[in-house]
Amino acid sequence: MCRWLAYSGSAVRIEELLFKPKHSLIDQSLHSQLGAETTNGDGFGIGWYGVGETPGVFHSVEPAWNDRNLQELAAHIESPIVFAHIRASSGTPVQQTNCHPFRHGRWLWMHNGLIHDFHRVKRDLVLHVDPELYPEIEGSSDSELFFFLALTLGLEDDPPGAVERAVGLIEETGRQHGVAHPIQMTVATTNGERVWAFRYSSQGKSRSLFYSTDVSTLRHQHPDNPVLHELSDESRLIVSEPLGDLAGAWNEVPESSYGVVQEGQDELRPFNPRPPVDKAGLTSS
Amino acid sequence: MCRWLAYSGSAVRIEELLFKPKHSLIDQSLHSQLGAETTNGDGFGIGWYGVGETPGVFHSVEPAWNDRNLQELAAHIESPIVFAHIRASSGTPVQQTNCHPFRHGRWLWMHNGLIHDFHRVKRDLVLHVDPELYPEIEGSSDSELFFFLALTLGLEDDPPGAVERAVGLIEETGRQHGVAHPIQMTVATTNGERVWAFRYSSQGKSRSLFYSTDVSTLRHQHPDNPVLHELSDESRLIVSEPLGDLAGAWNEVPESSYGVVQEGQDELRPFNPRPPVDKAGLTSS
Amino acid sequence: MCRWLAYSGSAVRIEELLFKPKHSLIDQSLHSQLGAETTNGDGFGIGWYGVGETPGVFHSVEPAWNDRNLQELAAHIESPIVFAHIRASSGTPVQQTNCHPFRHGRWLWMHNGLIHDFHRVKRDLVLHVDPELYPEIEGSSDSELFFFLALTLGLEDDPPGAVERAVGLIEETGRQHGVAHPIQMTVATTNGERVWAFRYSSQGKSRSLFYSTDVSTLRHQHPDNPVLHELSDESRLIVSEPLGDLAGAWNEVPESSYGVVQEGQDELRPFNPRPPVDKAGLTSS
Amino acid sequence: MCRWLAYSGSAVRIEELLFKPKHSLIDQSLHSQLGAETTNGDGFGIGWYGVGETPGVFHSVEPAWNDRNLQELAAHIESPIVFAHIRASSGTPVQQTNCHPFRHGRWLWMHNGLIHDFHRVKRDLVLHVDPELYPEIEGSSDSELFFFLALTLGLEDDPPGAVERAVGLIEETGRQHGVAHPIQMTVATTNGERVWAFRYSSQGKSRSLFYSTDVSTLRHQHPDNPVLHELSDESRLIVSEPLGDLAGAWNEVPESSYGVVQEGQDELRPFNPRPPVDKAGLTSS
Repeated sequence: MCRWLAYSGSAVRIEELLFKPKHSLIDQSLHSQLGAETTNGDGFGIGWYGVGETPGVFHSVEPAWNDRNLQELAAHIESPIVFAHIRASSGTPVQQTNCHPFRHGRWLWMHNGLIHDFHRVKRDLVLHVDPELYPEIEGSSDSELFFFLALTLGLEDDPPGAVERAVGLIEETGRQHGVAHPIQMTVATTNGERVWAFRYSSQGKSRSLFYSTDVSTLRHQHPDNPVLHELSDESRLIVSEPLGDLAGAWNEVPESSYGVVQEGQDELRPFNPRPPVDKAGLTSS
Repeated sequence: MCRWLAYSGSAVRIEELLFKPKHSLIDQSLHSQLGAETTNGDGFGIGWYGVGETPGVFHSVEPAWNDRNLQELAAHIESPIVFAHIRASSGTPVQQTNCHPFRHGRWLWMHNGLIHDFHRVKRDLVLHVDPELYPEIEGSSDSELFFFLALTLGLEDDPPGAVERAVGLIEETGRQHGVAHPIQMTVATTNGERVWAFRYSSQGKSRSLFYSTDVSTLRHQHPDNPVLHELSDESRLIVSEPLGDLAGAWNEVPESSYGVVQEGQDELRPFNPRPPVDKAGLTSS
Repeated sequence: MCRWLAYSGSAVRIEELLFKPKHSLIDQSLHSQLGAETTNGDGFGIGWYGVGETPGVFHSVEPAWNDRNLQELAAHIESPIVFAHIRASSGTPVQQTNCHPFRHGRWLWMHNGLIHDFHRVKRDLVLHVDPELYPEIEGSSDSELFFFLALTLGLEDDPPGAVERAVGLIEETGRQHGVAHPIQMTVATTNGERVWAFRYSSQGKSRSLFYSTDVSTLRHQHPDNPVLHELSDESRLIVSEPLGDLAGAWNEVPESSYGVVQEGQDELRPFNPRPPVDKAGLTSS
Repeated sequence: MCRWLAYSGSAVRIEELLFKPKHSLIDQSLHSQLGAETTNGDGFGIGWYGVGETPGVFHSVEPAWNDRNLQELAAHIESPIVFAHIRASSGTPVQQTNCHPFRHGRWLWMHNGLIHDFHRVKRDLVLHVDPELYPEIEGSSDSELFFFLALTLGLEDDPPGAVERAVGLIEETGRQHGVAHPIQMTVATTNGERVWAFRYSSQGKSRSLFYSTDVSTLRHQHPDNPVLHELSDESRLIVSEPLGDLAGAWNEVPESSYGVVQEGQDELRPFNPRPPVDKAGLTSS
């Protein structure tokens, strides 16, 4: 339903990621090739880490392709971690409080996909949000509620486990309401140090997700490309659709798996939703 | 926190109500004299009855005083019932889904005031909304939730009773959370035939509310005023602040009371919040 | 660069034109099939005749497909003449003052296409605008300036002649600046009684334009279609792209021609730009 | 008609200037004490120097007091030069292209005041803009046109002289059209190294303008104020209205004068408009 990009590595000006590549995210806002919709014009957002305790976020309900402020910020802000998201609404209103990335403290969260039949399950899911966190929910989207469920279930301590528990809860709740395939998702989240990216759907036909080949390999394959020499070895992009046209640059994230971009060796692991456990220690299904 | 106007009577062009009077609602958006804030620039909305089953609504996050579209619509739409509202946010985001009037079927609702310490009581109040109605909540404001509580508690069948029950529930919930004065309100609601207007606050110091003297009396007092001759005898305005400068034109709605504007004799009655009743038939306080 | 629709006939609710047809204008905003761009998401506007001396206009910088206010107005306003326009900017800013239709007194104007190399010719063209009219220009688009040139050159007295003179001026000015094909256009204009629609381009490859077959013929061909029985015989649509799927319903406006929709017989005539004439009575080329 | 702030000195986070002071610029947007209007809610803008060749600018049509994106940027961007402007329109549309500061290359420009009877003189003034610069004009405001006149008349080489020539031209043009007092202004402009601030009006009753006392003096007067110890001696603020409540902190810029904030000694000089000179070397008045 949307497209997104997560970058981690050498500090770069945001426009290098958003505007300059061939088939950039901005180009995808008008002409997505792999997305569920070709147009992603229902608002956008970016998140970055710079001055200040928390990451900065910028949200707009304008389509990204013509937004002057986005061009300005992208040209004048650089950051070692950048999240960018263009939205195609699955029904909830086009308003800034429904734009990704969402933020809580040092954390950012963005989501492509949807919770199916959201109007049927929303109330039950809302009841699972920690009452302390509940007043922070500002929008009306499935993606923000998903974030708050993950926060409630331990995102800050164990991101993969919390997302597995949140997805387990969403799937169980959906099935209680007769929803065949409760969730469709690619998700990125970060605490400003590591980036986690998830690909999963109840149906097993998840939205596309790609990560960039490591920079030293690319440099070896394309010795004449100057851009590659400016990036640190650690630099990594995760995207809904490949950008640019560098052969060998992109690898698909497999179905039902997640990756961690971090200092040292990155990781790629299987993703298994964990249904809620009842008081007797049994899963409730 | 806001200012509003409700009109019922001969079909009038909306600009006659919004722009032309001295100290009009648009003037109040910049220079409110009786409001809690002098500036009401956090969005606005209008509602009217014309073509179509439901009333039309127009919401904008721009300040009303400079909005070209509002000027256009006000000059080109006429209606026998007009609701107009200018917002000064009490904290929730400035977005169209938080703009009044809110609509459900044939009903419109607008509110000036606030639910105090809303972030503390919101979750508990949300749980009282009829699960069938819950998915219709689109914004994040106290005023919209208040509307959905009133709908849940019978607004469409017994408007005064439903509002009394909703206020009773809000007061009890607030007091359970240690809120001294849970609600401050003037409210207008209509089904397109009658208009109900309420003035109440837990503290007994409610926001101002005025209704216009009946047109035949005014005509008698001001025989030379041409505008009065164009209005039907039934025409009536209810406003947060008096408009214009016609002597004898405005009467204050008393504390803790509500009025009904309808065909035949209008009414003015006392307003008494009704706390929720527990299963044993006792009030729970 | 844009898509538009002009309707004249029995008073209809705007949503009947904008939202309900298969491949409606709103659908074209996301998936134009014949346009220069597939996405027309850089603002939109509607114009209608109802209460008030002048036509009403509503302009928005949001994409039309998700704009709640457009849905509201379309469902609650009806008019015997409706202009609607969805924009794909050819470079000028996305702002309400660049949204079509433009208005002057009783007149509306909308344009699909562009003045090529507008930045090179704009200043020279602005100098030709009647100084009395000049202060009314509020936006920065080629289309609005084109309207003011037509007004300067007699639009209100002789619409086809004025447009031919305006296009002649734009072509001559462009060629003086070395622009090979100065203008690309379909244009609709109305005074609330008749509608004129033009199709022309300097290159002879104009944007598509279609008009609806007359209603009595359609009724004869499709005796079972209930919608056709509600429309008056005079009802006529002119559109950038055919709507709906009624066989035989649409006819292409030929290259370099214009049509007039009016009481009685409609007309279709050749369009011939008229270059400016110098003081000696000779054309200046 | 507006309020503005120009800062030059140690790099500061923008929120330190915009949000934190008592009677901050954001507070002035709601409750201006010295301005021509109490409310400045018709859009705003900021400009800063950071990454990138040109300064960054951010423009919004929302009122500044509730804009989430402004809060975000102010909290996450720091700069040694900051321009901020809140607008109260003198009639031209509320749109981003009419928001200050305006930019050309490395230069920023913002203006409080107006060109009187702008609709009468606009066309004549536009004709004086360098045709090379003309296509860069995007909005419709007097303030942007004033900037382009100053650029045409040498702003980049001799800022005070260029502003004096632009004001002379505006005054002469106004008087030719019978305008008694053609201009009212405080203006700030910068090239990223020095800041020039002007106070002038044809009537001799100019809008208020203040500059901060130099930091070492303030530190001496207020030895216990920690903020003053973080600022470099060179730090200087120029504002429409004094911020904060530090005794002795503010000095009024005299009528018809301008100041230069620069490395080394700042300057304060008289401002004398220079009417255009005709070909014979005589002033044309």
